[in-house]
Amino acid sequence: MKHVLLGAFLTCVPVSLLADPLPSWNATAAKEAILEFVSSVTDAEGPYYVTPSDRIAVFDNDGTLWAEQPVYFQFIFAMDRLSELAEQDPSILSTPVLKAAAEGDLATVLQGGHDALIEVVNASHSGTTVEAFQAQVAEWLAEARHPDTGLPYDQMTYQPMVELLRYLRDEGFKTYIVSGGGIHFMRVFAEQAYGIPPEQVLGTYGNSTFENVNGVPTVIKAPGIAFIDDKEGKPINIERTIGKRPILAGGNSDGDFAMLDWTTSGNGPRLGVLIHHTDAEREWAYDRESPIGRLVDGLDQGPDKGWIIVDMAKDWSRVYTGGN
Amino acid sequence: MKHVLLGAFLTCVPVSLLADPLPSWNATAAKEAILEFVSSVTDAEGPYYVTPSDRIAVFDNDGTLWAEQPVYFQFIFAMDRLSELAEQDPSILSTPVLKAAAEGDLATVLQGGHDALIEVVNASHSGTTVEAFQAQVAEWLAEARHPDTGLPYDQMTYQPMVELLRYLRDEGFKTYIVSGGGIHFMRVFAEQAYGIPPEQVLGTYGNSTFENVNGVPTVIKAPGIAFIDDKEGKPINIERTIGKRPILAGGNSDGDFAMLDWTTSGNGPRLGVLIHHTDAEREWAYDRESPIGRLVDGLDQGPDKGWIIVDMAKDWSRVYTGGN
Repeated sequence: MKHVLLGAFLTCVPVSLLADPLPSWNATAAKEAILEFVSSVTDAEGPYYVTPSDRIAVFDNDGTLWAEQPVYFQFIFAMDRLSELAEQDPSILSTPVLKAAAEGDLATVLQGGHDALIEVVNASHSGTTVEAFQAQVAEWLAEARHPDTGLPYDQMTYQPMVELLRYLRDEGFKTYIVSGGGIHFMRVFAEQAYGIPPEQVLGTYGNSTFENVNGVPTVIKAPGIAFIDDKEGKPINIERTIGKRPILAGGNSDGDFAMLDWTTSGNGPRLGVLIHHTDAEREWAYDRESPIGRLVDGLDQGPDKGWIIVDMAKDWSRVYTGGN
Repeated sequence: MKHVLLGAFLTCVPVSLLADPLPSWNATAAKEAILEFVSSVTDAEGPYYVTPSDRIAVFDNDGTLWAEQPVYFQFIFAMDRLSELAEQDPSILSTPVLKAAAEGDLATVLQGGHDALIEVVNASHSGTTVEAFQAQVAEWLAEARHPDTGLPYDQMTYQPMVELLRYLRDEGFKTYIVSGGGIHFMRVFAEQAYGIPPEQVLGTYGNSTFENVNGVPTVIKAPGIAFIDDKEGKPINIERTIGKRPILAGGNSDGDFAMLDWTTSGNGPRLGVLIHHTDAEREWAYDRESPIGRLVDGLDQGPDKGWIIVDMAKDWSRVYTGGN
């Protein structure tokens, strides 16, 4: 009987009291600030207590929860997919950008900037049911390997961030992704990789149509982007979908600035976290000049706003869930 | 010690085993079908078991969870608000529809159809922060009374449906509103009235802008409708926001047909529920000819699709949470 009661008791003890909840974070100021924030908002007797239903934490995905070099992984999928589609019907490669993308000529595509990226995504992501599209993504994730690391893309998630997400949930937070990436793409792996279910994955989405397919009413991915979940789109999407201002936001680029600024401008305790890519050895080092994940405003204004700037090289003892 | 253990045990017993979970439903076929469906999808040993994370239940609001006559309650708020705004600035009543609305001349407005409704909502719902708008709604709900019943509008929620929502949640379902009504309007009362938190309220929404207001980044309600959550918009919005096909959908008008059709076309056990307004004595009786809550396709095709058609007069022993 004693053992039964002890067991029942132990399941009620927060994990944080039993072991370090963030083992892949070095014992630096960044880790300390995170632990202190979480401790303060969960202390029911303290002045900064936040009721569990208001413990909303939002995170960008590309460059924040997983890597994003040499280009967003969804874009690598788009190029691979376009290449496959062109084998069946070469006429779909109707522009120089689409031709370059299908050949894997990333440098040429990137010269076309944001418009070129959208053109390629558009051509490769529509005209299927959501289910068929997600089956393609799942197959690609199982087979494709990153050109530099040789890892499956979903093992290039950041172990310290996976730990942070779990820790926050253990402390009563609800964790969301709010990403420029596509919702249908991310939902294929977000639950397994991050413990974040489909309804907590916010992102960019295309147009949809509702059609009768062989007698079954079905949602179809149609051409055209309906909403871009980047910059000001992030707070607008959060407000629209979650209906509350978060108390914690994490990002890594200026596309996340508005989200962090909105989050940390609320009353009461708030935390903004920016992942600074400083680790050329284990990952990549980039910020102000990078076409992917450009970070200027966050570095210039973040510290004055009280945001934690995470130095990957110094603050993380491990990077990838699938590596070191 | 015995009592402590007994107490711990009792908190684990589903409410449904202890008492009738739907006391305001008469013992008719509709109630039986609902109980049977819930029992089958929660029976872990049975052939129709559905894992809790897939127990998604979606409900229309107007005419399904609360009344909608003589016109959607949000529209009565819009007319009252327009009237207030016109006291400060009469020039905003720039069209005959807006003038009629501000005078409470509902008949004239309704002659303008759907476009007139949107014109009035547009003129009365934009140009404020979300917080300020919701404070107006809260104040209105506290003071306004329904012209026929004399009840506060948020006491004209349907007691049988409030019980159904609670019952579903007790049985591991996640309950959502998916309504043609506005998200910012509904979120003011949905949590208290239905136990549905803001992030589970889907609906129509207007454009938003992200602006700096006195140094604080703020989401502003801008003119124009961004998304209408009606007809095909409902399954599209559910797919986009929740990312799963629900297993239970409830509605009352042809605006809910696509949502019920999509829900009940999925594999495995599914339930569609249509509330048929048959009770001229306690509520209103309307269907095929009504400008508000028109129900034709659902009555014609619903029974063949296996949907439950709830006969309010016969199936409900009580109607309003605030009345009989």
